[in-house]
Amino acid sequence: MSAKTVQYDKLKNYTSQVLKGLGYPKKQADITAEVLVEADARGVPSHGVARLDFYEKNVKGGFATPAAEPSVVHETPVSVVVDGNNGVGSYVSDFAMRKCIEKAGKTGAGFAAVRNSNHFGMAGLWAEKAAAKDQIGMAFTNTRICAIPTFGKQRILGTNPLCFAIPREGGIPFMLDMATTTVAHGKIEVYERRDLDMPLGWVVDEKGKGTSDTKGFQKLFWSKCPDGGHLFLGGEGEDLGGHKGYGLGLLVDLLCAGMSLGRWSLHTFEGNNGSGIAHFFGAVGLNIFGNAKEIRRHVASILDEVRKSNRAEGEDRIFIHGEKEAEAREKAMKEGIELDEETVKLLDDFGKKFKIEGL
Amino acid sequence: MSAKTVQYDKLKNYTSQVLKGLGYPKKQADITAEVLVEADARGVPSHGVARLDFYEKNVKGGFATPAAEPSVVHETPVSVVVDGNNGVGSYVSDFAMRKCIEKAGKTGAGFAAVRNSNHFGMAGLWAEKAAAKDQIGMAFTNTRICAIPTFGKQRILGTNPLCFAIPREGGIPFMLDMATTTVAHGKIEVYERRDLDMPLGWVVDEKGKGTSDTKGFQKLFWSKCPDGGHLFLGGEGEDLGGHKGYGLGLLVDLLCAGMSLGRWSLHTFEGNNGSGIAHFFGAVGLNIFGNAKEIRRHVASILDEVRKSNRAEGEDRIFIHGEKEAEAREKAMKEGIELDEETVKLLDDFGKKFKIEGL
Repeated sequence: MSAKTVQYDKLKNYTSQVLKGLGYPKKQADITAEVLVEADARGVPSHGVARLDFYEKNVKGGFATPAAEPSVVHETPVSVVVDGNNGVGSYVSDFAMRKCIEKAGKTGAGFAAVRNSNHFGMAGLWAEKAAAKDQIGMAFTNTRICAIPTFGKQRILGTNPLCFAIPREGGIPFMLDMATTTVAHGKIEVYERRDLDMPLGWVVDEKGKGTSDTKGFQKLFWSKCPDGGHLFLGGEGEDLGGHKGYGLGLLVDLLCAGMSLGRWSLHTFEGNNGSGIAHFFGAVGLNIFGNAKEIRRHVASILDEVRKSNRAEGEDRIFIHGEKEAEAREKAMKEGIELDEETVKLLDDFGKKFKIEGL
Repeated sequence: MSAKTVQYDKLKNYTSQVLKGLGYPKKQADITAEVLVEADARGVPSHGVARLDFYEKNVKGGFATPAAEPSVVHETPVSVVVDGNNGVGSYVSDFAMRKCIEKAGKTGAGFAAVRNSNHFGMAGLWAEKAAAKDQIGMAFTNTRICAIPTFGKQRILGTNPLCFAIPREGGIPFMLDMATTTVAHGKIEVYERRDLDMPLGWVVDEKGKGTSDTKGFQKLFWSKCPDGGHLFLGGEGEDLGGHKGYGLGLLVDLLCAGMSLGRWSLHTFEGNNGSGIAHFFGAVGLNIFGNAKEIRRHVASILDEVRKSNRAEGEDRIFIHGEKEAEAREKAMKEGIELDEETVKLLDDFGKKFKIEGL
């Protein structure tokens, strides 16, 4: 088994069949396949088809109920609270984000707090749906525990990503899609495979002290010990602003779990009643601030000036958030999506199990 | 002249008189005095009465027009766009935030984009006004340029603070009020006075490379050279997430300047037509997500669990954002506000100039 390049549609179709094999109904399988393959196409394989392994575990572990339909537990002209009923994260998120966009189209703003959902993929995929309708898009989610608060050492918070997408004239939206932790766990796994020490500022050990020992940390992380975990953006203590990153991570949980009366990160994947993942979405129309086209143009002019500002020695480009992913996608649509050896094997194993035609 | 402790009301009254001396009408003077003294009471002197010096420069330099009234340039049931007409930042912000809160009370959500304003003090003071009405409060502002984008070296963005306040039952709101840069400039000035090197991750030099040379940086920062400046949260490059902090700083400018069609950080304090500072405010009612009291209780229970989680070795407390400031305020209301020698001298000089009774 070796690395392989696969066309977008072929990979999406194959992924959808794998998900059907896992018990997903057609609608749930199709949207989840799209969300996973989009991440791969954008150069974010940590949220791509390699996650099928995790998705299988979620079904087998009783954390996700593939056929569950979300229900609305509260609704106003500017909001909806959704119970995902332990359903598929992408399917539930699509339902909630559509509501936000529809409400924002009518009233100017729409928000959705969602409880009892599951992994929703790349946050940006939801936020950009609003941006495509001339709205500011927002998407937040809590996750499985992995991160510690400033001055703490216990894993109580998730990577808790936040995303804001803002439309601009003549180009892709500004799209800030970031884990509030310094790095996602996938990056530590890459360092482990390459036998490298981590930079200080990524994680702490069981005493709550910064460490660069990748292998020691990985052992601790997957042990029963509740201590030792990821640091938030800004790192350890307050000198480099770690308390700010921790605040952003906590904010995400207060929006997702707080507003939905759902479970916060510490209590996700507890017991046998779903993973309890919670999300928060928002859509705010540009037209509530005046002429949308004029605003989009102004946003574009600001971003152009940022891009043209003086560069640090040795650097040849200042990036705007969302550009790297959009360029990766453009390339992938032409040349196909590169899958590493491990992912090809995972897909192939599923193919054998569910009798899906080879990639 | 030496350091001094002054009672809250006395300091507020004195500050208001100084502002009247600078040409502020009574209403503008009173609210600005309150905003400055509140910052001192909360242990945030960088936004306190020591700023009167800067406020005087803003009036003398033609950046602020103390008697200007804000005007509404666009309005919907969920939004308002305000032109500050170069007026006083606190006065303009009070006007805009009241509109947000009023709209959120009626429709569930209210947003304000504000252009042509001035320094608005601590962001948290505006966001907490919404939290006091059972709403999620948001406040953002751009500022004078000081910060560089990832891979850049030119000062094009401000400290661009963001603030979210979320009500909780039985206590002060969760209040994340943070500059998106690693540190505010005031912190570098403290290091300069103490003749200390800065940690790497705070700033870059004229080549765009990280430096810990405090004096060299200060000289560069106040020179005509456009290069060298503050790093955003996460520091230099991408290894520790500097691109995320840069994204947050840029987001703040897109909300403030983008939505108001105002000036972004790079163009603040340009020419003779006001400072051009822009803000963005938001208020979202908890009741659009269900029973507000139940949500406040849930928020409180999450924060309690965070506070009680395992602490790092040698640490005796995990803080919730907003607690330090609230405790400092409680102490200051009992014992008075401590002013350092330099600030006492500044106030005393104003007192002599405007014939205000001694502190």
